Amino acid sequence: MGRPQHGGNLAWAANIAGCPASSLLDFSASINPYGISESVFKAIKQGIVQLKHYPSPDYSELKNCLGKYHHVSPDYILPGNGSAELLTWAAKDLAQCPATYLITPAFGDYHRALAAFEGNILTVTNSLPWGNLSSLLPKNIILGSGLLLNNPHNPTGTLWDRSEIVNYLDKFPVVVIDEAFMDFIPPTQQQSLIPLVQNYPNLIILRSLTKFYSLPGLRIGYAIANPQILEKWQKFRDPWSVNSLAVVAAIAAVQDTKFQQFTWNWLASARDNLSQGLANIPEFEPLPSAANFLLVKSPVSVSDLQIKLLKRFQILIRDCLSFPELGDNYFRIAVRTPEENNYLLSSLVDVVSSK
Amino acid sequence: MGRPQHGGNLAWAANIAGCPASSLLDFSASINPYGISESVFKAIKQGIVQLKHYPSPDYSELKNCLGKYHHVSPDYILPGNGSAELLTWAAKDLAQCPATYLITPAFGDYHRALAAFEGNILTVTNSLPWGNLSSLLPKNIILGSGLLLNNPHNPTGTLWDRSEIVNYLDKFPVVVIDEAFMDFIPPTQQQSLIPLVQNYPNLIILRSLTKFYSLPGLRIGYAIANPQILEKWQKFRDPWSVNSLAVVAAIAAVQDTKFQQFTWNWLASARDNLSQGLANIPEFEPLPSAANFLLVKSPVSVSDLQIKLLKRFQILIRDCLSFPELGDNYFRIAVRTPEENNYLLSSLVDVVSSK
Repeated sequence: MGRPQHGGNLAWAANIAGCPASSLLDFSASINPYGISESVFKAIKQGIVQLKHYPSPDYSELKNCLGKYHHVSPDYILPGNGSAELLTWAAKDLAQCPATYLITPAFGDYHRALAAFEGNILTVTNSLPWGNLSSLLPKNIILGSGLLLNNPHNPTGTLWDRSEIVNYLDKFPVVVIDEAFMDFIPPTQQQSLIPLVQNYPNLIILRSLTKFYSLPGLRIGYAIANPQILEKWQKFRDPWSVNSLAVVAAIAAVQDTKFQQFTWNWLASARDNLSQGLANIPEFEPLPSAANFLLVKSPVSVSDLQIKLLKRFQILIRDCLSFPELGDNYFRIAVRTPEENNYLLSSLVDVVSSK
Repeated sequence: MGRPQHGGNLAWAANIAGCPASSLLDFSASINPYGISESVFKAIKQGIVQLKHYPSPDYSELKNCLGKYHHVSPDYILPGNGSAELLTWAAKDLAQCPATYLITPAFGDYHRALAAFEGNILTVTNSLPWGNLSSLLPKNIILGSGLLLNNPHNPTGTLWDRSEIVNYLDKFPVVVIDEAFMDFIPPTQQQSLIPLVQNYPNLIILRSLTKFYSLPGLRIGYAIANPQILEKWQKFRDPWSVNSLAVVAAIAAVQDTKFQQFTWNWLASARDNLSQGLANIPEFEPLPSAANFLLVKSPVSVSDLQIKLLKRFQILIRDCLSFPELGDNYFRIAVRTPEENNYLLSSLVDVVSSK
């Protein structure tokens, strides 16, 4: 079994660790460790009997609910089979541009989606940690190019200010902002571009319910964009692309304010403590992060570290070999519960000190 | 609320009938009325806790299970988010051909999928009921064209012999056979092309678990084709397109031989009785069908009939207005339980006699 390209491939890791996948402590997938929330679990369970009906192809109940949640008209919303499906259609639009600017290292799936429609990618990068967006994106942009931006950014955890991104909305005919991790940021600090979507018909925002609500197996995300774009996508994509359990789960999830508040409270302190704990280990340098994961610089070979953590502690961390800009000297870890984070820290100390 | 393009839009129908959607008797969607089976229900319920993990992008457990079921190597199988997703990718391949031959009336989603990639369609048709495939497909085929064939055929219920289709496999560089309803035919009578897939690298078979196992809300289908084709699709599609509950449901479903046998026993007699009952009403002429639905010719306006059945009996039948070849003088009904079929027959008699 080869080393997987994506995070979250537990079968590969369990094989190395010599334990069932369910016994692994998974820091590789950036998922809220407190999910699935009770209300979402209940909604899914109650929804099973409805599976004998087709989903309503207009998904109006879900659109209304998400519209209310984000204070936009429901026709600005299109649910998808995970945000990955919507990324595919966004990439089909981006591929019409002569090139798409992408800040790297970047989520591997962007390359997949653009390659599917033979889209050209212009990668831009800088040494980490990053500064402003203007220090990354070039001053002279190729006319007619697209922009695909991830905010907060995976795998670095960088959060760009809305005010910074706005400067670029007039410069690109297609701007796709992947806000898959934005939910993890408390509302007053969020930098979502959703409030601007009505003013910019070239702006496409992708959101996911996978990470915050701990539902990666269910596949549920949505796009927020001008209705003309979404109607076009709806016309050529599968009419029933979102399963009915994803629909009821999403409706329950965005209304679960208790779970949301709990998550924001947990993350701020858990991330600070984990980051501090990592900084206290001389070998590691965690980067500042606004999201529910940390990118960590490591002079120690990470693929080596990863295997040792698996074999000795059944802990899975995300290596960065699939990001050519990072290679074997970075790893990414999800922020988990305080107890799990402490267990990771002590395991890391054990592994680096016994080299 | 406008008349829906697809079957199964219960919200529209419930509005006309003046009842909740759950009170409708739905003959419009061609779904097994005996599902969801106990074993599948249990598998889904037990799977909910696993939703906090990503699906394994290689779906190897499901591929192995389906491979065993169909006696083909697992690498000839690609699961999809309903067969609709796989149709989208098959259409991307077909769109590379100068044109794709399609026998009409045809499932509306074929037009959607081909239009998504600007594929050309060459429709061929004949008066109903149809004879052999050779009486439908032209003798001189445009070189390099694709073939998209639905067997058994929706909405007519026609089943073509495997031996007839084989004659065309050498004539087209891409042949897509949609076998979404093949499961409803007892194994000894099935005309699936799966046994030929290893000999024809241009042959793509689409299968659905939606109809037979009554899971249209869950989205699960699969393609059977040469691994080179499937690996190409896998590379450009979303890596986690099949949700984890669909995976466990599919594995439980294909192993539920009791449910399969029960369904075959029910369908043969229920379809015969329903067809006979319709033929006994002077206004209607049911066409012969090998599937779990009947196409019925009606001199009475079907849109009128449909509304009356909804208002008086909360029964929903599938009008054929979305099929230009059929228009207002055909309707399609699913075969349901003997009691429900009898209720439909008496309701139809009531509506046509009180005109």
